[in-house]
Amino acid sequence: MEKMVGFENLKISGSDATNAVINLDQGNPTAFEEYWMKMKERCVVVIPGWELMSYFSDTTNVCWFLQQDLAEAIKALHREIGNAATEERYIVVGTGSSQLCQAAWFALSSLSEAKPLSIVAAVPYYSTYEEQASYVQSQLYKWEGEARTFNKPGPYIEMVTSPNNPDGTIREPVVNRGGKVIYDLAYYWPHYTPITRRLDHDLMLFTFSKIAGHAGSRIGWALVKDIEVAKKMVQYITINSIGVSKESQIRATTILNELTKTCRIKSESFFQYGYEKIKSRWERLHWVVDKTGDTFTLPNYPQAFCNFFGKNNSTFPAFAWLGCKEENDLESLLKEKKVLTRGGDRCGSDKKYVRVNMIGPDKDFEEFLHRLLTIKNPNCFDP
Amino acid sequence: MEKMVGFENLKISGSDATNAVINLDQGNPTAFEEYWMKMKERCVVVIPGWELMSYFSDTTNVCWFLQQDLAEAIKALHREIGNAATEERYIVVGTGSSQLCQAAWFALSSLSEAKPLSIVAAVPYYSTYEEQASYVQSQLYKWEGEARTFNKPGPYIEMVTSPNNPDGTIREPVVNRGGKVIYDLAYYWPHYTPITRRLDHDLMLFTFSKIAGHAGSRIGWALVKDIEVAKKMVQYITINSIGVSKESQIRATTILNELTKTCRIKSESFFQYGYEKIKSRWERLHWVVDKTGDTFTLPNYPQAFCNFFGKNNSTFPAFAWLGCKEENDLESLLKEKKVLTRGGDRCGSDKKYVRVNMIGPDKDFEEFLHRLLTIKNPNCFDP
Repeated sequence: MEKMVGFENLKISGSDATNAVINLDQGNPTAFEEYWMKMKERCVVVIPGWELMSYFSDTTNVCWFLQQDLAEAIKALHREIGNAATEERYIVVGTGSSQLCQAAWFALSSLSEAKPLSIVAAVPYYSTYEEQASYVQSQLYKWEGEARTFNKPGPYIEMVTSPNNPDGTIREPVVNRGGKVIYDLAYYWPHYTPITRRLDHDLMLFTFSKIAGHAGSRIGWALVKDIEVAKKMVQYITINSIGVSKESQIRATTILNELTKTCRIKSESFFQYGYEKIKSRWERLHWVVDKTGDTFTLPNYPQAFCNFFGKNNSTFPAFAWLGCKEENDLESLLKEKKVLTRGGDRCGSDKKYVRVNMIGPDKDFEEFLHRLLTIKNPNCFDP
Repeated sequence: MEKMVGFENLKISGSDATNAVINLDQGNPTAFEEYWMKMKERCVVVIPGWELMSYFSDTTNVCWFLQQDLAEAIKALHREIGNAATEERYIVVGTGSSQLCQAAWFALSSLSEAKPLSIVAAVPYYSTYEEQASYVQSQLYKWEGEARTFNKPGPYIEMVTSPNNPDGTIREPVVNRGGKVIYDLAYYWPHYTPITRRLDHDLMLFTFSKIAGHAGSRIGWALVKDIEVAKKMVQYITINSIGVSKESQIRATTILNELTKTCRIKSESFFQYGYEKIKSRWERLHWVVDKTGDTFTLPNYPQAFCNFFGKNNSTFPAFAWLGCKEENDLESLLKEKKVLTRGGDRCGSDKKYVRVNMIGPDKDFEEFLHRLLTIKNPNCFDP
């Protein structure tokens, strides 16, 4: 698990596709496909034509469109991993955590006297928050950007993404003036970061996409302490899309249950596999960045004791927050090399940084490393 | 197919569940489950753990999250049924047609100079439009209600639902001042209404839920002529939910393909089955309404030649628009009988009317008929 893997192959694996565009902009988590292929028929879902036809899942539940089995699977996995408290909380399922984030803003602003309610996040933040908060020009809430300099009096919502997207840091609220805090915990899983605490915040968002890679399913869930907030979130999803795909819910149930069942079996555990996979990529990326001398920067992450793995681990984020010491526009520089990344300016930060997907396909990652090396020394890796 | 079915059993079938609440408010289409059970393994969908993991379906398509097979299945079914033109149109898939409706408003208002853009529909209208247009208090568009009295100058959007929800009438635009028209064609299928024309409007919405009853899948599609509108709709869905469940898309593909394949085989055709099913219910409802004398009213629908069935047919809507001659609040009257319906006031109309789901479970429909009879003559059907 701790061995360094295959740096010597970099030249070969990267040299046969130099003209293709490599898209590392979105966080498409297809790196994990190989794990699921190895699992073969284990998580096959079979749906007969007559099943899942109703709008309703459980009319006695606040979240009437939540499949009860999915709720149980979510609770079991959190219990096993120890990353979040599910007791005395309502589970609201969403079409990805994107829809849930907007549902939460709708809920908190509808229940607030101040409208539009300010939404802030510390820089660098997940660029999509800004788009989500702005696109329909809602009068309920308003994107106010950087949380650290936010000084409007009155109620507000602070998004705390931890580990943070795009830079992988562990985060706490920064405004601390009694506003509402939404914890986006998409990456608070043991293959990305040490599980140091069982979080028990009032409003926590999780996404199925970034656990074991099933982004196409569009499933997320919120753990919500206040029933009024949960009800309003359900109202949003009811009006927005009359619930959430039942097919995706039962597939997520099957897969989450498998993750729970195997998470302590070292040879089968997805989290063990995922940890080694991403760690190996980070080691390769660090090796390349070192090779390029003073050209690029990467954040340093402190080690911490992971309660799940039972040992000290570092953080291996799903995105690399790559900086450039000399260039002023790293996104454009990489684009010249046909590598698409997300510019730091879109995250409220500087164009000297880009967000790079670390959980895409193997061949794209290898090719990215290859092209990164050619930036420092354009000829050394050409065939 | 034309025979009258089982009125004589009404007393018996309805008499054993008089205390249960019957929910005919939402249009839950579970009446069709029996068809799919008869089809047995024909439309079983099998999804291995490693499939459908990516956010992307086809990055060369305007609608990058649309599974190509689903696009083909949609086009094949429309071609076979003859209800809508798909040529020279972009297909945008959505999390139900609810999300697509909001995507279309976002698109048309974003591309319009006038903001907020007025949204209107002729009374009685689908009550959900009003909620969808209002809940996030968008500054892009504004619900203006009744289209017939709408007289604000400038651009606008008119929703034309045909056959109409809630009253089943065939509709055309009523404002006719050069505004944008969105055709909601959820019920323009041959089991509900004669297919008299192959519609070729600029923006047409369809939903998977109301064709053969798979409401839990949350799949809808738009046929869009203008690429700029299609792009903006895709932008809405990208920000709102980063695409649409892939599991639901492949299940919809399988089921739509089966509908197409069997639609001309009388013994297997879903549309033949669905037509007989709903027609029989309407006949039973008319019988009961006649029995109650002057108490209730139902709309009359003209016959028309159905190009699909090749004969004159009437309309058998998915909802009954039930009126009451003497009562002023029919929803409350039915609620006393523990029958939940949607009051006409929510559809911009009068409380003398309710919308009643005609495609729910058999036992609920039978019980509804039973309770309706007791309103006129409270004792005649008690055991």
